Amino acid sequence: MREHCRALDAATFGALPEPLPTDEHRARVTAQLAALAEQPYAAAGFPKHQGGTAGYGEAVAAFEMLGHSDLSLFVKAGVQWGLFGGAVSLLGTSRHDDLLPRIISGELQGCFAMTETGHGSDVQSLLTTATFEAATDEIVVHSPEPAARKDYIGNAARDGRMAAVFAQLLVDGEPRGVHCVLVPIRDEDGTPAAGVTIEDCGPKLGLAGVDNGRLMFDQVRVPRTNLLGRYGDIDDAGTYTSPIDNPSRRFFTMLGTLVRGRISVAGGAGAAARSALAVTTTYAAGRRQFAAPGTEVETTVLDYRTYQRRLLPRIATAYALQVAQHELVRAMDDVLSGRAASEQDQRQLETRAAGIKVLTTRHATDTIQECRELCGGAGYLWANRLAALKADTDIFTTFEGDNTVLLQLVAKSLLAEYQATFGDLDTAGIVRFGARLVGGTVIERSSARGIIQRIVDAAPGREEVVAFGIRGTQLRLLREREEHLIEGLARRLRRATAPGVDSFAVFNATQDHLVEAASAHVERMVAESFAASVESCVDEDARALLARVCDLHVLSTIERHKAWYLEHDRLSPARAKALTALVNEVCAELRPHATTLVDAFGIPEGLLTTEMSGTA
Amino acid sequence: MREHCRALDAATFGALPEPLPTDEHRARVTAQLAALAEQPYAAAGFPKHQGGTAGYGEAVAAFEMLGHSDLSLFVKAGVQWGLFGGAVSLLGTSRHDDLLPRIISGELQGCFAMTETGHGSDVQSLLTTATFEAATDEIVVHSPEPAARKDYIGNAARDGRMAAVFAQLLVDGEPRGVHCVLVPIRDEDGTPAAGVTIEDCGPKLGLAGVDNGRLMFDQVRVPRTNLLGRYGDIDDAGTYTSPIDNPSRRFFTMLGTLVRGRISVAGGAGAAARSALAVTTTYAAGRRQFAAPGTEVETTVLDYRTYQRRLLPRIATAYALQVAQHELVRAMDDVLSGRAASEQDQRQLETRAAGIKVLTTRHATDTIQECRELCGGAGYLWANRLAALKADTDIFTTFEGDNTVLLQLVAKSLLAEYQATFGDLDTAGIVRFGARLVGGTVIERSSARGIIQRIVDAAPGREEVVAFGIRGTQLRLLREREEHLIEGLARRLRRATAPGVDSFAVFNATQDHLVEAASAHVERMVAESFAASVESCVDEDARALLARVCDLHVLSTIERHKAWYLEHDRLSPARAKALTALVNEVCAELRPHATTLVDAFGIPEGLLTTEMSGTA
Repeated sequence: MREHCRALDAATFGALPEPLPTDEHRARVTAQLAALAEQPYAAAGFPKHQGGTAGYGEAVAAFEMLGHSDLSLFVKAGVQWGLFGGAVSLLGTSRHDDLLPRIISGELQGCFAMTETGHGSDVQSLLTTATFEAATDEIVVHSPEPAARKDYIGNAARDGRMAAVFAQLLVDGEPRGVHCVLVPIRDEDGTPAAGVTIEDCGPKLGLAGVDNGRLMFDQVRVPRTNLLGRYGDIDDAGTYTSPIDNPSRRFFTMLGTLVRGRISVAGGAGAAARSALAVTTTYAAGRRQFAAPGTEVETTVLDYRTYQRRLLPRIATAYALQVAQHELVRAMDDVLSGRAASEQDQRQLETRAAGIKVLTTRHATDTIQECRELCGGAGYLWANRLAALKADTDIFTTFEGDNTVLLQLVAKSLLAEYQATFGDLDTAGIVRFGARLVGGTVIERSSARGIIQRIVDAAPGREEVVAFGIRGTQLRLLREREEHLIEGLARRLRRATAPGVDSFAVFNATQDHLVEAASAHVERMVAESFAASVESCVDEDARALLARVCDLHVLSTIERHKAWYLEHDRLSPARAKALTALVNEVCAELRPHATTLVDAFGIPEGLLTTEMSGTA
Repeated sequence: MREHCRALDAATFGALPEPLPTDEHRARVTAQLAALAEQPYAAAGFPKHQGGTAGYGEAVAAFEMLGHSDLSLFVKAGVQWGLFGGAVSLLGTSRHDDLLPRIISGELQGCFAMTETGHGSDVQSLLTTATFEAATDEIVVHSPEPAARKDYIGNAARDGRMAAVFAQLLVDGEPRGVHCVLVPIRDEDGTPAAGVTIEDCGPKLGLAGVDNGRLMFDQVRVPRTNLLGRYGDIDDAGTYTSPIDNPSRRFFTMLGTLVRGRISVAGGAGAAARSALAVTTTYAAGRRQFAAPGTEVETTVLDYRTYQRRLLPRIATAYALQVAQHELVRAMDDVLSGRAASEQDQRQLETRAAGIKVLTTRHATDTIQECRELCGGAGYLWANRLAALKADTDIFTTFEGDNTVLLQLVAKSLLAEYQATFGDLDTAGIVRFGARLVGGTVIERSSARGIIQRIVDAAPGREEVVAFGIRGTQLRLLREREEHLIEGLARRLRRATAPGVDSFAVFNATQDHLVEAASAHVERMVAESFAASVESCVDEDARALLARVCDLHVLSTIERHKAWYLEHDRLSPARAKALTALVNEVCAELRPHATTLVDAFGIPEGLLTTEMSGTA
């Protein structure tokens, strides 16, 4: 599928050669979307009985490749097929199946109307209502106050004809929690439907080709059958039924099915970061500045230690995250295709997707920023791609789940596992506040658990001198940090349940600890995935090079947390200093391979043309 | 002067309500510049005999206030009056004085043509030539190869009529080093002058209202008198003369006079960061999300610890940097007005300007990014200002000196002082490579040296328990780090001079250490300025609040370098943990004052209107 994408016509799918006026950019993206619909990618994301080809992993891989083109197209396609199509496919029932061929072909364009002006992260508190009216057999969708306005909705300002609207369902006066209802928002000519007010969100930092808009509903009536009723339906007698009794569990199950969006965002962020690294490495390998004393030849900027330090660890991390992403996509494919269908599989996938999304979008923002600075003035010019990459991906840290909120979600999964394992934690106080973010779930070790355990076991035991060159030792350091942070967190939270304690205050006071624990968990998992992948590489030369890339990723990760290791007596001051020296050394060792490493990203020809690479 | 700026007409000088097509944006900025010329700001930056009012500090303060408006206007004004006008004013002789009233009024618009496609940081290696031809009494300006193209030149693509061109001067076949020559580039109608090729740099990440362009010269002839000859002139007999014999010292003296540009960029970056903090704090104080258990009321996001941690230390640092900026501007005013006219004063000013520019632009980029994320989707919308602030200020880390290169410059000053103080350092090997970046200079302690020494001396001596609450102890920790880093650096560099050593390799290997030492120096200086300023605040309540803000700034700075303190046994693990707890505590204490603190930035009314603050 990736090879197929690499052959895509760059003239059609290539990045924007220059910024366009909003209208033209939107029109260009709409046309690109139509052209994309003729490719097999969209259909891959849907099961066969809905007109798809059930290649779920392939669909996300193709989508990730699209992350090398104009990211407005990436997001527009994500809204149409991933979010809107995904909601209909996964939350709908057989009565909605006939919509899907029209969604896949792009004939029916739609929106995913979840976020409101007043509520983003706290989806369970949405204000929009969907009231079932038995007399007319209709559902009345309504925005009771300005804060209920659906906001930042992609595809709403220009192209969408229908919206999957998340709203509080009321049946017979009884609140049933957030459900999703299909609401036509425009007729075929684009005229807004009666009772639907549509506004344009106006200009944004980036993604100018995506028509984000706002929707307000004034008692808009739709047939009862427009309810996407897989997890909660209203039968012909007007009675609410659901296969899941617990309303909170029902809600999280519904949200959980939409995990693909988060995985896709991680994929796009990773692709954008790799684009930036490729542009910058090409620049740095050709750019010379300042002659060393006694020579006439100016030094290549990539030979400067300060430059290597800023660029090479980020290339190494890009590798680590890509491997983790591959593993995540495989796990998603297993779940969506039914090969791994347990509730535990699903929950594991959600936690992992949340964690990888956070690390990859954070990495993308940080990396693209650093690349811009590393390219100097040239990095500021639109023609060299970094400007668009930076502006377009900025929001990736926010949409499909704010990164800080997602880390809280990950942490709560870890605590649940901790309790399941050790049983000595009264989770009442912990989960009380957190329950609305995530249900209880079990956290995995790693899909390559066996390999990793073998590597770690082979490392010498903990001793005076930490041997940073031994993979098992590297990984053990990451594990120790994760475990210590989670245990400490559990201890602190236990106090929240003591009598007379202001449990919110205790909970709030642990937030920085909690977020750090979650990060440590995901970092450990990503490092283990990468280490396992290096082990299984069959080409000997490639394996040797990748092993060094893995060293750089893991060691620079440990170095970033050096204060923690020193504070917790896991590294002596002397070893901590040696670590920094070693990271410098590995950077210098990898410097001659920098171009090889970014070439191996396999970025489609033609999608990455810049003035810099053109003149290099 | 600040109060005067606060009364500026927001309709004329306010930020851009929405992104405009490039042509319209450029035209708007040009019109705003003409309106600004009617204000007293531009004239303040020039001495009286050149038609100015000699209010150098005031000019920079006014310019900083302009940093709250559209940053394209800020940069355009900086190019016209600061860079172009500054070059004519400071590098020219009395024969150029008649140009200045026309420059101040905006009648003559100009460019500062220093950077070339092939050389940015390494100005001494510029390729453009300016060859004196005795027969015609002319100077021939020429771009001998594509890398000699003048690049990213503000005012070049549309409005500039004349350029101050930096080029290698050749007189009688002898190279005299880089000098500056005035070259008309367009006639009054805007037609490019003969031999001058002008290109547009095309679209950029931000600053769309600035017409950056490229200039190529094909044997362009100008009268000999167009040489800005203050530091190197050609007399009527065609003989080169200079008040400074040493060519390298001459070059650095010329560059040094242009220090105002760097100071102004720091001012604008600080203003932009404060704008972002004000927008975000207003949002955070009104935005509620998630109800605490047992309550119906949702919690204000600013009450969450994770949120406080991300926002409040940055507000504290904004205060510290603003105080440092004030002090820097005062020092600049002393130098430019002749009250502090020694070479040492000038060199101190250059080093300090370089350091403050690095810290403030780094702070701006980091802060605006964090603010964008803290405002979620709302932060992504153009209407809320953060998008433009982010895109427009990104290049501030690069222009007027790449931040990494500037830190190298600062470090070299520190080493020179170290050698002057201890005399045990063979600087040959150090300065050999670095000489082209900076001449020898003496580094200052702090303008408030007396106060600070008293504060530090009053702190208890170094002991088991570090009392973080004592200002003298806080400052001593920063000093110790700076001194240790510089001493270690000097030791390492001494090895570069040992026989048989590859001195470039040694020098290159210390680059990360060197940059860290420079950062530590500037951080210490900024903290001391802030501490002294708090001490001298006469309002008791304000002083108490500012003292807490200073605590947060200094403690979070130390916390950021916690690994170093642990590695060097300056903090025990237990104290390091206590430090983190204390930073959390101070954040919580300052939370109720957050709005007060951003109100006190005194951002001009009307310049900061957003949809968020409008609806809050």
